[in-house]
This record gives sequence, structure tokens and C-alpha cells, in this order.
Amino acid sequence: MNINGKHYRTIWLNESDHTIIEVIDQRWLPHEFRIEQLATVEEVAIAIKDMHIRGAGLIGATAAYGMYLACLTANESSHFNESIDRFAEMLMDTRPTAVNLSWAIKQQVELLKNEHISQSQKIDQSKALAIKIADEDANACQDLGQHGLRLLNDIASKKDGPVNVLTHCNAGWLAFVDHGSATAPIYAAFDAGIDIHVWVDETRPRNQGARLTAWELGQHGVNHTIIPDNAAGHVMQRGMVDIVITGTDRTTFTGDVANKIGTYQKALAAKDNGIPFYVALPSSSFDWKITNGIKEIPIEKRDGSEVHSIYGLLNGKVEQVRLTPLDSPAVNFAFDVTPARLVTGLITERGICEANEKAIKDLFSE
Amino acid sequence: MNINGKHYRTIWLNESDHTIIEVIDQRWLPHEFRIEQLATVEEVAIAIKDMHIRGAGLIGATAAYGMYLACLTANESSHFNESIDRFAEMLMDTRPTAVNLSWAIKQQVELLKNEHISQSQKIDQSKALAIKIADEDANACQDLGQHGLRLLNDIASKKDGPVNVLTHCNAGWLAFVDHGSATAPIYAAFDAGIDIHVWVDETRPRNQGARLTAWELGQHGVNHTIIPDNAAGHVMQRGMVDIVITGTDRTTFTGDVANKIGTYQKALAAKDNGIPFYVALPSSSFDWKITNGIKEIPIEKRDGSEVHSIYGLLNGKVEQVRLTPLDSPAVNFAFDVTPARLVTGLITERGICEANEKAIKDLFSE
Repeated sequence: MNINGKHYRTIWLNESDHTIIEVIDQRWLPHEFRIEQLATVEEVAIAIKDMHIRGAGLIGATAAYGMYLACLTANESSHFNESIDRFAEMLMDTRPTAVNLSWAIKQQVELLKNEHISQSQKIDQSKALAIKIADEDANACQDLGQHGLRLLNDIASKKDGPVNVLTHCNAGWLAFVDHGSATAPIYAAFDAGIDIHVWVDETRPRNQGARLTAWELGQHGVNHTIIPDNAAGHVMQRGMVDIVITGTDRTTFTGDVANKIGTYQKALAAKDNGIPFYVALPSSSFDWKITNGIKEIPIEKRDGSEVHSIYGLLNGKVEQVRLTPLDSPAVNFAFDVTPARLVTGLITERGICEANEKAIKDLFSE
Repeated sequence: MNINGKHYRTIWLNESDHTIIEVIDQRWLPHEFRIEQLATVEEVAIAIKDMHIRGAGLIGATAAYGMYLACLTANESSHFNESIDRFAEMLMDTRPTAVNLSWAIKQQVELLKNEHISQSQKIDQSKALAIKIADEDANACQDLGQHGLRLLNDIASKKDGPVNVLTHCNAGWLAFVDHGSATAPIYAAFDAGIDIHVWVDETRPRNQGARLTAWELGQHGVNHTIIPDNAAGHVMQRGMVDIVITGTDRTTFTGDVANKIGTYQKALAAKDNGIPFYVALPSSSFDWKITNGIKEIPIEKRDGSEVHSIYGLLNGKVEQVRLTPLDSPAVNFAFDVTPARLVTGLITERGICEANEKAIKDLFSE
């Protein structure tokens, strides 16, 4: 999508040196727009773990590019396979909840440990695979946007005034390679001329909504309003929301949705007010093994410092300020699980389906 | 309760000059402990409106003291009654959702416009009334704490490990004259030696939980953990919460609860997980006129700047940092309404009752 009129993706190869990955360093948004160069697997691991980049699709694509860098480094070593395993493990440990991470790494490992391919072929094919994973991510998001557009069109045809979408966290194009998941239908609707307005949950503790979703919607010209996470239930109760669309970091084939902490509370509020609650995801975010999301999806606990402190702009500089008493502890669960019973439907690149095993498997029969 | 070992209330008369009110200026907590002197009605109005002081009971007590200052000033005027009316209106406009505000002001106006009392008697009686309202607030909170203690005792007797209470915003002693509403049972349990742990919702946008509740619990030595508002549903879903207790700014006689924005979402999560959801209130927070809280309670909309920016500590100084893109709008609803059907019970100074008209009127039959 566009930044200040220029088209960007969130990740790409350096134009003149294909051993360097470039990403938008999202930690500084919306205050500063910085591009970061990643030249080693270690740098990629830090970028994922410390959330220079984040979001289901982008984590997958970045891990895929990271494994391509792993291939370049392992190629210098006499223990190629051991190096690959070590790098794969290093990347796998960065964000335990993200299913796209392991999905992308596994594809690369399979290729890189294929004994029928030469080392130099592996470098070319690993690069091609990273590019393919990134392209497919962008394409899947664009396709799911077209399916989601139908839902927004339906709402627009039945009411006066704007279609009010509420979203949580950033499942925008910044969380993917392009288009986004939850935002793809919104951008599609905006581009189709539908009058659309987005309620953007702030999304503490890392404020991905207030920082990233608001910024990217603003850059694209989409009408939006930031609200504290606490206000989502109220605006739903007062009839100010037509539909909720969120992303997901991992959705079980039974329809349980792991997503940014707080999603579960939005789903409860949507249910209580008869508002449709949709989850948008490229199929790479499905977990085909886990039956019970609440019991089986590991929930990442991040450092309490993200609750104690926050980054913001002061006199033109991004500064971190302390919010809490110095001797109060804090815990920081990064995700929660919304049970399938609260999910109206899933918007995927193949179409929209209900959040249950039968409907999901009907759409993805392979 | 205690601050650094010394007992305080949140509001009192200056020891040597009874024409000056002193309050804890809560805007600087937990980073700085400041006491503010209020010498005019205008200063009192600013202190309420700009939330130097806040919370249901303390707003009422402060308004009562404000009307005593109004009496002192009006006494200098040739139009006593007109002055009283003007000051009453000024104070009434500061926080429209708080029912204690109008409750306290009306009592003072009735006294001050009583034609059978001399001006000098009015001054004495108005001061006495303010002190009485403050004392009654502290006593009511202490009494409701003893009733709420029974609930926590019951839980403690049925489980190993700490009793886990979740609370939202600050319905602590800082929100009243002393003891607090939601915290009164907690302090009572702590003082009774019950092993207790409190999940403190951060409570964006003004972070009353992270700033005030965490601070006052810490000062009293109560075990607690701060969580982002988004995490409340998750900790409930994972069995880490035994009971939710919140305060209220206004509860209808039919049991609908207006409280800090986000309370409704916590109540939904409690309901979904079979966790008892209690609201603690001195009876001064009942609204005896309104039947339908969602339709009839006015919801204060505060300035969007509270969402855009936040105060925190940087290099020993309290600074305000900008969180959001400069051109993104934000809205800031201060309260929401939790319908009675989600409320397990009300903890009052007279005892515990269900959140419905019959039960409430049985307890408050006058």
C-alpha cells in the first residue's frame, strides 16, 4: 500500500545486494518512518523477537527470508545441515504463538535439507522460495479482501451513512507483506467507493492499533477513529458498529482464534450486541493439528516492561516513559484465544466460511 | 489508609485555616505525592473537572466542601441565593455522570437556601454538612468492606492459594474519602490475614488502575499485578480470577451499573467464565430515578487528548508523550453501562443484594 503516495511492501530484497533484506522498522511508527537492513539470521531473529516487524504474514515472510540468509551463512560452514537446524531453531524460538513462523521455516528446511539439490541451487531456490512466500502472502490478502468486500457491500446496501468496522491490533498491511488481513476488505471497500469508517482499538500494551493501524489507514485516506480498548464494548452497545473484523496469529481447523490479547473481549461484546464478528486470515494462519485452541495453543508471555512503560513522542523525539509504580509487578500475555462459538465467520483467500471444522475443511479439502 | 506508614484521607480541612480545603492531587500519582490547597469554588470546580481528584465518593465530598466555600463567598455578596445557585451550577457541570456530585450539592443547596437559618449559622452548618458527608462516605465504605469480606472469606475457605480478585479503574480509597468501595473488602480481607492477590486492570485512557489502584494497594502491602485492560478476559478464561469487584459512578435502582469505560467488557468476560461479578457501592451512588441505565444515564465524553497522549515518568520528571499519528482522530467515552443481567450482586454498606429493583428496594426500603 502507499506511504506518502509511494507504494511499499513491508519486506523486500535490497535492490543492488540480494544478500540484504530490507524491512520497515515498525517500532518507530507513527512518529518516524525507518527502514532497517537485515544481513544475518541473528539480525532477523532480533527483528522478529523484538518486534521491529510483527504480524502473522510478515513474521512468516521474514522467517522465510531469514532462512535464505541462513542458507548463505551455512554455505560457508562445513556442517551445512547442522547450521540450518540451528538457525531454524533460533528463528522458531522468536514468537511461539505465530503459526506462520513455523510454517515458513519448515518449508525452507525441507528444501535446504533436500539431498538431491546442490548447494548453489539451494541458494537460488531458497531465495525464490522466500520471494514466493512473500508474494503469496500479498496475493492471498488481496483475494480475501475481495471476499470480505461482499460483507461490507451488503451492509452498505442496507443502511445510510458509513459502514462502521471495528478492528483490534494491527492486522493491516504492516502485519503482512501487503494489503493486510482484517484491513484488506476495508481497503477494497474504500477503493470501491464505499463510505467506510473504522474504529481502531488502541491495543495496549504495544498500541499496534493506535500506532500502526491508525497510521496506515490515514496514509491510505481511510476515515477512522482511535478508541481505548475499553471503549469497544460501549460503541458496540450504542449501535455504532456494523461489523467487527480482526486478524489472527493462529486459527485451529476447529475455528478457535488466537489473536492479540483483548480480541476475546471484543468477540464477547459483539456477541452480546448481535454484531457479526469476522476473522480474516490467509490459510497459512490455519493450524491443522490443534483441536482445542484454549487448551493447546501456547500463549506467549512478553516482558512486563511493555506494560510498565510506553514509547511516545516528546519534543520531536521518541521517548519511553514509566507509567506504573516502581514496585508493582505486571504480567504481559501477548495473545488470547477466542472460542469458535463467538466467531461469525472466517474470511479467507478462498472465500468466507463458518468457524467450524466441517466448513473449514470443505473450503480447504486437500 | 496509609501512605508511607502515615494515615491519610483524600480530603480534609486545613488544620489552621478552615477556609481552605486540602486534597491529594492525584494527577501526579504514582510518580509524585502532591497535596493541593483549594481556597475558592472555582478551584474546586477545576479540581473536579480536570480530575485532580476523582472517584464517586470523593467527587461528592469535594463538591460538598466546595459548596461550603461557596457559602463563604456568597456571604460577602448582596445576592446570597443567586450566588449559591451559580456556584451549585458551576460544580454540577463538572462531571455529568457522577450521581454523588448532584446528591451532595443538593443537600448543601437545601441547607443554604433555608430561610429559617441565619447567614452565620449557614456557614457553620455548611461546614458541618461537608464534614458529615465525608465521614459518612468513609464509614459507608468501611461497612461495605465488612460485608464484602464475607464473599472473600467464602472463596478462601474453598481453595488453596490466594483469593484472586480482579478490579477495574480505581474504586480504591483514593476514589472515596477512605477505604474505597471495590477495595474495601480487599483491605478488610488483607487486614483479616486472608491470602489475597489483586489483578489490577490498567484502565486506559487515564490509567487509574495502573497509577492509583496499584499504588494504593502497594502502599498498604497488598499483593497485586497490573495487567493491560485487554488481558482481563484471558486471565478469567484461564481460571486465574475468583471474583471481579468494581466500583460504580452511578447505579440505577434497577441494577444497571455506570462505571469507568471498559467495565462492561469485564462483566461480559466474567459471565462467560462463570466468575461472580460484584459491584461495590455506598448507597449514595444509587440513582433512584432512572430505570434503564443504558438509555438514560448520560455518558461523559472527555477530550480526545487523553487518548492521544499519556503522562509518565522520564528522567525523574512527569512528562506527556504523544502516542498516536498527528492526524488521526480519537474519541474518549469516560463511562459505559453494564446491564443488571451481568451483575451477580451489589455490595453496599447495608449488606449484599442482587442487582434488581426488588432486592435493592428491600435493602433500602425508605
